[in-house]
Amino acid sequence: MSTLESDTSFGLELPERVDVFDTTLRDGSQFEGISLSVDDKLRIAEQLDYLGVTWIEGGYPQANPKDSEFFRRAAAGELQLDTSRLLAFGSTRKPLGKTDSDPTLQALLDAGTETLCIVGKGSAWQVREALGTTLEEGRAMAADSVRFLKAAGRRVFFDVEHCFDGYKEDSEFTLSVLESAALAGADCIVLCDTKGGSLPHEVQAITAEIARYLDGVNLGIHTQDDTGCAVANAVAGVLGGATQVQGTINGYGERTGNADLITVIPNLTLKLGIETLPEGRMERLGPVSRHVAELVNLPLNPAAPYVGTSAFAHKAGLHTSALRRAGTTAYEHVDPALVGNHSRVLVSDLGGRTGMSMKADEFGVDLDGRAAGSLNDTLKDLEAQGWVFEAADASLELLMRRAAGWTQPYFRTEAYRVSGYHREGADGDPELATEATLKVWVGDDRIASVGEGNGPVNALDAALRTALAPHYPQLDRIHLTDFKVRVLDGGAATGATTRVLIDSTDGEETWTTIGVSPNVIEASWMALVDSLVFGLNHSAV
Amino acid sequence: MSTLESDTSFGLELPERVDVFDTTLRDGSQFEGISLSVDDKLRIAEQLDYLGVTWIEGGYPQANPKDSEFFRRAAAGELQLDTSRLLAFGSTRKPLGKTDSDPTLQALLDAGTETLCIVGKGSAWQVREALGTTLEEGRAMAADSVRFLKAAGRRVFFDVEHCFDGYKEDSEFTLSVLESAALAGADCIVLCDTKGGSLPHEVQAITAEIARYLDGVNLGIHTQDDTGCAVANAVAGVLGGATQVQGTINGYGERTGNADLITVIPNLTLKLGIETLPEGRMERLGPVSRHVAELVNLPLNPAAPYVGTSAFAHKAGLHTSALRRAGTTAYEHVDPALVGNHSRVLVSDLGGRTGMSMKADEFGVDLDGRAAGSLNDTLKDLEAQGWVFEAADASLELLMRRAAGWTQPYFRTEAYRVSGYHREGADGDPELATEATLKVWVGDDRIASVGEGNGPVNALDAALRTALAPHYPQLDRIHLTDFKVRVLDGGAATGATTRVLIDSTDGEETWTTIGVSPNVIEASWMALVDSLVFGLNHSAV
Repeated sequence: MSTLESDTSFGLELPERVDVFDTTLRDGSQFEGISLSVDDKLRIAEQLDYLGVTWIEGGYPQANPKDSEFFRRAAAGELQLDTSRLLAFGSTRKPLGKTDSDPTLQALLDAGTETLCIVGKGSAWQVREALGTTLEEGRAMAADSVRFLKAAGRRVFFDVEHCFDGYKEDSEFTLSVLESAALAGADCIVLCDTKGGSLPHEVQAITAEIARYLDGVNLGIHTQDDTGCAVANAVAGVLGGATQVQGTINGYGERTGNADLITVIPNLTLKLGIETLPEGRMERLGPVSRHVAELVNLPLNPAAPYVGTSAFAHKAGLHTSALRRAGTTAYEHVDPALVGNHSRVLVSDLGGRTGMSMKADEFGVDLDGRAAGSLNDTLKDLEAQGWVFEAADASLELLMRRAAGWTQPYFRTEAYRVSGYHREGADGDPELATEATLKVWVGDDRIASVGEGNGPVNALDAALRTALAPHYPQLDRIHLTDFKVRVLDGGAATGATTRVLIDSTDGEETWTTIGVSPNVIEASWMALVDSLVFGLNHSAV
Repeated sequence: MSTLESDTSFGLELPERVDVFDTTLRDGSQFEGISLSVDDKLRIAEQLDYLGVTWIEGGYPQANPKDSEFFRRAAAGELQLDTSRLLAFGSTRKPLGKTDSDPTLQALLDAGTETLCIVGKGSAWQVREALGTTLEEGRAMAADSVRFLKAAGRRVFFDVEHCFDGYKEDSEFTLSVLESAALAGADCIVLCDTKGGSLPHEVQAITAEIARYLDGVNLGIHTQDDTGCAVANAVAGVLGGATQVQGTINGYGERTGNADLITVIPNLTLKLGIETLPEGRMERLGPVSRHVAELVNLPLNPAAPYVGTSAFAHKAGLHTSALRRAGTTAYEHVDPALVGNHSRVLVSDLGGRTGMSMKADEFGVDLDGRAAGSLNDTLKDLEAQGWVFEAADASLELLMRRAAGWTQPYFRTEAYRVSGYHREGADGDPELATEATLKVWVGDDRIASVGEGNGPVNALDAALRTALAPHYPQLDRIHLTDFKVRVLDGGAATGATTRVLIDSTDGEETWTTIGVSPNVIEASWMALVDSLVFGLNHSAV
């Protein structure tokens, strides 16, 4: 399959190379739910270097003491970069202030990076209303600050805040700020869609107009996802003439997020033939996306382009015959291996022998004809009861192994009991207690354990881990990341069947297991057992 | 704040109106993790009508018996549409087959909708490799099928699968398929980016070339998110000349999903001034997005453009002084109220007073100023914990009554205990038992009851009904019709907060109640108690 279609530029002149500027550690950390320690930041920076982005914006040292510490520890040798270069972020001097006594500019110089990025306002309305100063002073703040940092021998990128809105309102002022910064020596002028309200055709047209006006100046593009177009706007900026593209891993960022570099990079390279990462790094997109999601402790979107678990999952239906005839290629826009992902044929809809033997190959399970036949019957029964294996590959793999004669050797359950207690308190808040008792066998060793938790499943999880920990210390690395309950056949209400899905990780791989039962505790137990057995089986290899 | 910027078209000719075509019930249901019952589909269709989309694609009757049942029940009066129109989806006749004996075409006619949509291949490679037939036959399949359905008096939309890839590979063939379908009478030709691999500048250029070639034919645009550009590609299709835009609520769809109509609609209307929904419906985007997410039981992306809880959340940092000086407007690309959302700054929103007093009027609850103020605080606390009252009016009504000084007079809980037991059996099937014991007071009467069930919630429900039945025979008429569990804050996995929603009916009215707790049993108990109290309170009137 060719990944580069013919004539994708539609007559546009494309750059040979675009620099990738990552701001996960600065703009990305503004995402609701993200709160990074200095250690987290160091580990994310290592991932960015492993991926091979050109620039890593490490933080805003003047505004954030943690960021100062990050730069100090990075400079002290705690961050070894092979490919990427680190830079610090700040803003221009204050209105009517002096550059040489400005705390932000001083903090930037103190961060000790060769390259610095400062932000200034590119909109007349913002200068007047948000800064409360004159347009002339707005221009001077930009030019003075760039000149000051250049005089200190640094490479300087200038982020033009509200550039597109400013240009639409009063292009003359916006162009004059850009020109002032360029004349002061800025090494790259970055056009920012700060409110994120622009559409791609606007970004492309305005970037092209600015590129013509500032002929020869390096331009960057920084976009936000408020119209759901951050990625498209980043690409549009490049089509308009930008040669630096700013974004974050997994699109983390303020409000709706920034342009997702995990998508922008293959769009530029695989679709438009523009060089971004060093040779051989593209297939690290999937692993880095997953690893950073772990570090920031947010679930990865399964529908994420290129790297999501669903990105190359084929449920068929309409497409079954085409899939059978032409393979997954017929429905894949790029080869998933190029971006560190792989195809999945969702077994239920393809049904029958073909899909199943494709899955068995994928798992490395050797199914003979008889085992395949009986597995096929089992699957049909289970699916009729509400099991959905397309969402739970790990449980499917275990089921296939069992069909091929395998029995999990790690532990055997004898019994569990869960009890939940609620008593009204005098103050209106009830007293709650949940406890699970468990009896399991590991070999000839019978273990009775107790777990407490804030709910029945949590208590069972605790009891099982307590029982198994002495025998399987590797369970320490395995933890559950998501837990979903779906009630099937809602008509029977509280008597209905429940389906529980559990996502787990050992820090590298992630997997999903399933349990189905009218009893939500039993369904959870099934998914929990499969999660740990799968994790043990894969860590044993 | 102006929502429509000046000169956003950059010289392009924009249509006055674009028809919104929703395929949540067909393409959206292909999303991994979505599995819709016929009841779910009917309720989603009601939401689509409430929003006011032009077209609702209800399903693929030939491929899916559930979809046939959906169309049957819709036609039998179970779906009342005020604004939208329902249509059925299918494919063209088989290669070398006959139209009048084709099961797909027959199932389409049987679905009974005035409008039908059929899909055919627009790529020479796909016709040869995936269908295994000749280009001539590929064209004939399209033309014959359109002609057959038109002859039956239907309005026919023709989805051109792989249109953009096909055009890039062999534009002559693709144009010939489009032309054949148009000459056969198709009322709209929908250009589909089936693999989702295109970028906006390609979609816009190719759509414009096709619009020129098929001068005067209505075009539609159907995009997928495999390059993270589904929304931008939908807009690009409109800029290129399409006047029907296909997508789904919240972007559900195969692999990475379809164009998210919740984003596309305001992009077209608020950004480009193109009419989409009927007057006054735009502010329903937020509520409908949330309601459909509940119905499909998937968490809503907090970073979703326009409607996400983070979409207008200002964490400030860099922007604090601008926010203080110029208000949130300085960082919002549209007024959030226009799309049914609101700003959040630092502490929680000003939200609610107006909305709350409207709700109180609706419920007939008399809230004085002090009660309203304290209710407002309570609501903020509860919402921060994961309570969502939009989806649970009955619990909101009870909360308001309590804020106004009411105490439910029906029963008082003293305590409950639930216990679940699992012991491995000799035959591999475990022995399971669940039991709930309950102590409640009705007036001065203390009642202890036991309930058994196939799960903890079912057992509690049984115990509560056993206790109350002698005093409240009307409980006989009240039963639970649906029970949903959602796990919030997935990062904490089995220790996470759970939200339970229970739908109930007394045969005439239906109502929804909510409970939130880290303990799934306690959350269910809360929703269960509210359900019965609400039922008793309304049956008493």
